Amino acid sequence: MSSPSSPTTAATDQGMVLTLSCPNQKGIVHAVTGALLEVEADITESQQFDSPDTGTFFMRVEFHGPATRDQVQSVLDPVRERFGMELGLWEATRRTRTLVMCSKDGRTLNDLLFQQRAGTLPIEIPVIVSNHLELQSMASFYGVPFVHIPVVKDSTINSKEQAEQRLIDLVRQYEIELVVLARYMQVLSDDLCRSLEGRAINIHHSFLPSFKGARPYHQAHDRGVKLIGATAHYVTADLDEGPIIEQEVQRVTHAQTTQDLVNRGREVEGATLCRAVRWHAQHRVLLDGHRTVVFN
Amino acid sequence: MSSPSSPTTAATDQGMVLTLSCPNQKGIVHAVTGALLEVEADITESQQFDSPDTGTFFMRVEFHGPATRDQVQSVLDPVRERFGMELGLWEATRRTRTLVMCSKDGRTLNDLLFQQRAGTLPIEIPVIVSNHLELQSMASFYGVPFVHIPVVKDSTINSKEQAEQRLIDLVRQYEIELVVLARYMQVLSDDLCRSLEGRAINIHHSFLPSFKGARPYHQAHDRGVKLIGATAHYVTADLDEGPIIEQEVQRVTHAQTTQDLVNRGREVEGATLCRAVRWHAQHRVLLDGHRTVVFN
Amino acid sequence: MSSPSSPTTAATDQGMVLTLSCPNQKGIVHAVTGALLEVEADITESQQFDSPDTGTFFMRVEFHGPATRDQVQSVLDPVRERFGMELGLWEATRRTRTLVMCSKDGRTLNDLLFQQRAGTLPIEIPVIVSNHLELQSMASFYGVPFVHIPVVKDSTINSKEQAEQRLIDLVRQYEIELVVLARYMQVLSDDLCRSLEGRAINIHHSFLPSFKGARPYHQAHDRGVKLIGATAHYVTADLDEGPIIEQEVQRVTHAQTTQDLVNRGREVEGATLCRAVRWHAQHRVLLDGHRTVVFN
Amino acid sequence: MSSPSSPTTAATDQGMVLTLSCPNQKGIVHAVTGALLEVEADITESQQFDSPDTGTFFMRVEFHGPATRDQVQSVLDPVRERFGMELGLWEATRRTRTLVMCSKDGRTLNDLLFQQRAGTLPIEIPVIVSNHLELQSMASFYGVPFVHIPVVKDSTINSKEQAEQRLIDLVRQYEIELVVLARYMQVLSDDLCRSLEGRAINIHHSFLPSFKGARPYHQAHDRGVKLIGATAHYVTADLDEGPIIEQEVQRVTHAQTTQDLVNRGREVEGATLCRAVRWHAQHRVLLDGHRTVVFN
Repeated sequence: MSSPSSPTTAATDQGMVLTLSCPNQKGIVHAVTGALLEVEADITESQQFDSPDTGTFFMRVEFHGPATRDQVQSVLDPVRERFGMELGLWEATRRTRTLVMCSKDGRTLNDLLFQQRAGTLPIEIPVIVSNHLELQSMASFYGVPFVHIPVVKDSTINSKEQAEQRLIDLVRQYEIELVVLARYMQVLSDDLCRSLEGRAINIHHSFLPSFKGARPYHQAHDRGVKLIGATAHYVTADLDEGPIIEQEVQRVTHAQTTQDLVNRGREVEGATLCRAVRWHAQHRVLLDGHRTVVFN
Repeated sequence: MSSPSSPTTAATDQGMVLTLSCPNQKGIVHAVTGALLEVEADITESQQFDSPDTGTFFMRVEFHGPATRDQVQSVLDPVRERFGMELGLWEATRRTRTLVMCSKDGRTLNDLLFQQRAGTLPIEIPVIVSNHLELQSMASFYGVPFVHIPVVKDSTINSKEQAEQRLIDLVRQYEIELVVLARYMQVLSDDLCRSLEGRAINIHHSFLPSFKGARPYHQAHDRGVKLIGATAHYVTADLDEGPIIEQEVQRVTHAQTTQDLVNRGREVEGATLCRAVRWHAQHRVLLDGHRTVVFN
Repeated sequence: MSSPSSPTTAATDQGMVLTLSCPNQKGIVHAVTGALLEVEADITESQQFDSPDTGTFFMRVEFHGPATRDQVQSVLDPVRERFGMELGLWEATRRTRTLVMCSKDGRTLNDLLFQQRAGTLPIEIPVIVSNHLELQSMASFYGVPFVHIPVVKDSTINSKEQAEQRLIDLVRQYEIELVVLARYMQVLSDDLCRSLEGRAINIHHSFLPSFKGARPYHQAHDRGVKLIGATAHYVTADLDEGPIIEQEVQRVTHAQTTQDLVNRGREVEGATLCRAVRWHAQHRVLLDGHRTVVFN
Repeated sequence: MSSPSSPTTAATDQGMVLTLSCPNQKGIVHAVTGALLEVEADITESQQFDSPDTGTFFMRVEFHGPATRDQVQSVLDPVRERFGMELGLWEATRRTRTLVMCSKDGRTLNDLLFQQRAGTLPIEIPVIVSNHLELQSMASFYGVPFVHIPVVKDSTINSKEQAEQRLIDLVRQYEIELVVLARYMQVLSDDLCRSLEGRAINIHHSFLPSFKGARPYHQAHDRGVKLIGATAHYVTADLDEGPIIEQEVQRVTHAQTTQDLVNRGREVEGATLCRAVRWHAQHRVLLDGHRTVVFN
C-alpha cells in the first residue's frame, strides 16, 4: 500500500466518518487521535460518550485528509485491536442504500422520497417494496423501482414466509444497508427482525400514557390525551420495543376527532422517521445495549 | 327579588362565569343567551362543544352586567330545567379555595405558591397538608398554615385511615373546593378518591411509551427515551387513570443521567400542574365521561 | 323559495360554516342562534371572540340541517342588517379554489400538493404558477396545470407588470379564491397586494430577534440564534408585515451551518404554511384590524 | 510539586472541567488527551467544535483522577503554549459565585433561588442587589443578603454612576464570578457592560418578528403574534445584542390580553434564564466571536 503522503493520494481530500465503541478505559481518545494524526487527518467534528450503564465508550469523528479509506483503516487497526473496538469507517459522501417498505398510506414515503431528492437525506433508494399497489405511482414519479410483494394469509404462493424470502433476496440483490418501514402494515417474523437487527428502522405512534392493543388512536381519543406522538426505533424481535432513535409530539384538543388525531399523527410520524433515517445514514446513532447514543 | 334594572344593582358591574352541560339538542345556545340578554349581561367570552362521543353539549360563558348572581340564577333556572342541564355559576373574581398536599419535594409547591401570590393563579390556599416536615418553612414564608399529618403503617394513631379522616375534616373546616396533590407521595384510598372526584388534581410523570411499576425514571432511562413528560389529571379511584387535563413534554438525551431526568421531570410537572390548576379554577375544565373538555 | 321543511330539501342534510363580525353589542348570539333554530340547524361547533382592541365581535358556527344555503341566508339577512354584520356562509364540503405560486424550491409546494391529495387540506388547486420551470414535473405528477410566467427585468414582453396581469387573468379564469405564495421569490407590486388583500397567504422565515435585509439565514447563523422559525401571514402592501395566521419554530445549535438552517427552515415553513392554508380554507381565520382571530 | 502518583494525592479522586479554545490545527485533541493521560485522568465527557466561521477550535472535557488542579495545570501548560490556547480549569464541585440583580418582578429571581437551593443550579448566591425593596423578603426567606441600591435620576447621592460603583465594589467584595440580571430594569452603562463582558447574563423578551422600542408586549399583542419567547444572552455594550446562550418560546392566541402575554413571557424568561445560568456555571458556554458554542 502506498504511504499516506504518496503523490497519487495527496491530490484527493477525502471526507470520512469514523464510529467506534469499546469497554471504557484511559487513553482511547489519545490513541485514536494519534492514529488520525499519522495520516494527516483534519478533524472537523468529534463527539464521545462514556456510558455509565454499560461501561462502554462511544466515539464518532468526522475528518478529512489526503489518506484513502484503506490507509486510515490500516493506522486504526492496531488501535482497534488494543482496545477491543467495534469500529466503522465510511466515506462521508457515500449514501446509505435504503430499501423502503410501505403499504397504502403515502405520507411517510412521500416525506422520505422528497427529502432524498432534495438532498437533505443522505440516502439512495434503489427499490421500494409494498404489499399493496396504491403507492406505485408515487414511486414511479420519483423514478424508483416498485416491487409489489403481496402477503396473503394461508396462500401457497404469497405466504408471509415467501414474501419475506423475496424481501431478503431484494436486500441482497440491491446491496441494501438499511430497511425503513414507512408505515408498512405487516408484522415481520422474529427471524427476519433478528437478521435485520441494527439496520431496520420502524416508526410507531406513541402516546402518554401508551395504549396496548388495536386501534390506538381510538384509545387515545377515548382517553382524551392532549399530546400525540411518534417514536422511531430500530426493529427487534420484541415488537415496537426496539432501541429508540427519536421521538416527537404534537398538541391536540378535545375538539379533534379520532381521524384528526390520525392525520396529525401521520405528520409527526413522517417528520420523526426522516430525522431518525438521516441520523442513521450519517452514522450518528450507536447502540448502547438497549439504548441508543445519538451524536446529533 | 329586585328586578335586574333596579337602582341598587345597576351600580355594580359583576363579572361571572357560567358553565353548563346537557344532552345535545337544538336551541340550547339560543335559550341561554336569551336568558342572559334578559338580565342585560354582556358576554365577553363564550365557548361550546358538542361531544360526538357522548352526545353531550358543553358551554362556558364569561359575562358581566348589572345583575346579581341570584338574579342570573333565576333567569337561568327555567332553561336549566327545560334542557336537563348541569349548571355552574361563579363570580369571576372569586378565588377557588385550594388545599395543597405535598411530601418532601418542593418544586411544584413552590410553583403553586409563587404563582398564587403573583396573581397568575386564581386560587387562595388556606392550608397546606404534608406527611413530612421538609416544606414547612416554605409554607411559612408564604404565610400559609401548614398541617403535618404523618402516615405510619400499622400505627394506631397515625394510620392512613386516621390521616385521611383528618384531611376530610380540614376540607370541611376550610371550606375547600379543590385539593391539589403536588407530589404527595401517598396513595389515597378508593373511598377518599371517590369523595373528591372532580375536585382533586394530581400530577404524574409520563413517558412515551409509558412505564408501569416502580422507579419509572429509571425505566425511562434504561429504555433511552428522548422525551419525558407530565400529565395533570383528576383523581379517580382508578390510580393515575383519571381524566387528563393537561400534558407536556421536554427533550432529553442519552447523556442525561436518571437524576437529570428526574430534575427535568420536576420542572415539567410544576409547569403542567400550574396550568391545570389555573384552568380548573377558571372553570375551564368540564368532564365528558372519562375525557375533559378544556375551554382555554 | 320553498320552506325549510319542504320535502325536496328535507331529504338533504347540508353541512355549513357561518362566519360573522360586527360591532359588539348585546343580543348577537341570541339573534344568530334564533335564526339558525328557525331553519332547524343543528350546531356542531361554535366559537366567538369579543375583541377588546377594536370592539368587534367575531363568531364562527358549523352546523347542519335540512335547509339550503339560500334558505339559511334568508333567515340570517335581517340579523345581518340589524347588527351591521359582515357575514360569510359556505357549504362545509366545498373546497377553496387555490392558486399556488412557486419558484425553484419545491418543499412547500410538495407539502401542499401531497396534503391536498391526501384529503387533509380542504382546497382544490386548479393551477400552479411559477416564474421558473423546475417544479413543472411535480405539478404534472399531481396532475395540476402548470403555467410558467417568467419575470424579466426591463423586458418588454415579460415585465413584472405583464406577469402580474397574467396572474390576475388566471385568478379570474380559474375563479380563484385563495392565492398561496409557496416560496415565490418575486415581490408583488403594491397594487396586486391590495387587490388580493385577505385572500393571499405568504410564508416567511422568522427569527428571534428578526433580521432585516438580505440573506437572513446568514445573519441568523452569524448571530448564533438557537431557534429558527416561520410566519404564515396574509399579504398586504406592507411587505412581510401582514396579519399573522400561524408561527412555528425549531431548535438549532452552534454546530449547524447556514445550509442546515435553511433546510430546517424549509421544513418549518412547509408545515406552518399548510396549517395556515387549512385554517383559512376552513374559514377559521377572521381579520380584526391588523390581527387575526383564529378559531382552531 | 509532588508527582501525580504521590501517596497524598492518590487518595483523592478529583472531578474537573477543562475548557479551551485556540486557532484550529491538527493534533490538538491528541496533545490534550496525552497530557490528561499523563496525570491518569479518566475522561467522562468531552465535546469539541471546529468553527468554520472563525477557524477556532473549542473543547470541553470533564474528567476525574488522582491529580490536583495544580498538577493538571502543569501538564497542560506546555500544550497551552504550543497551540496558543485560552484555557480554563475548574474543580467540578465548585459553585460559581453569582450576584443576582432584580427590580420588582420576582418570577425569575424566585426560579433562580429555588433551583439554587434545590441543587439543580450549580451556583451560590452570596448577595442580591436591587434598585427596589419589593423582593427583600424573598431574599430573606432564602437567607441571601439583600443590598438596596436605588438609582435616582439627577441625584447627587444615588446617581447611576454611584450605583454602578457600589455594584462594582460588591462584585469585588463578594468575589463575584457571574452577574445575572433577573429582570433588572435599569440600563447598565457601556463602561460597566464592558467590564462585565463574558460574566454577566441578561434575559430579554423575544418575538417573531421582534419589536424595537417601548412596551414590546403591547406591540406583540397589537401585531397578533402566535408565539412569544425569551432570549438569554451575555451582556455587551450593544444593548440586548450580546451573544445568545439560549432561547425559548411559548404559544399564545388572539384571545390573550397583553397582560396574559406578559405573564406567559415571565414564565418563559425564568426557565430560559435558569438554563443559561446552569450551562454557564457548568462551563458549557464558550464564546466564538459574537456567537456562543454551547456544549450541552
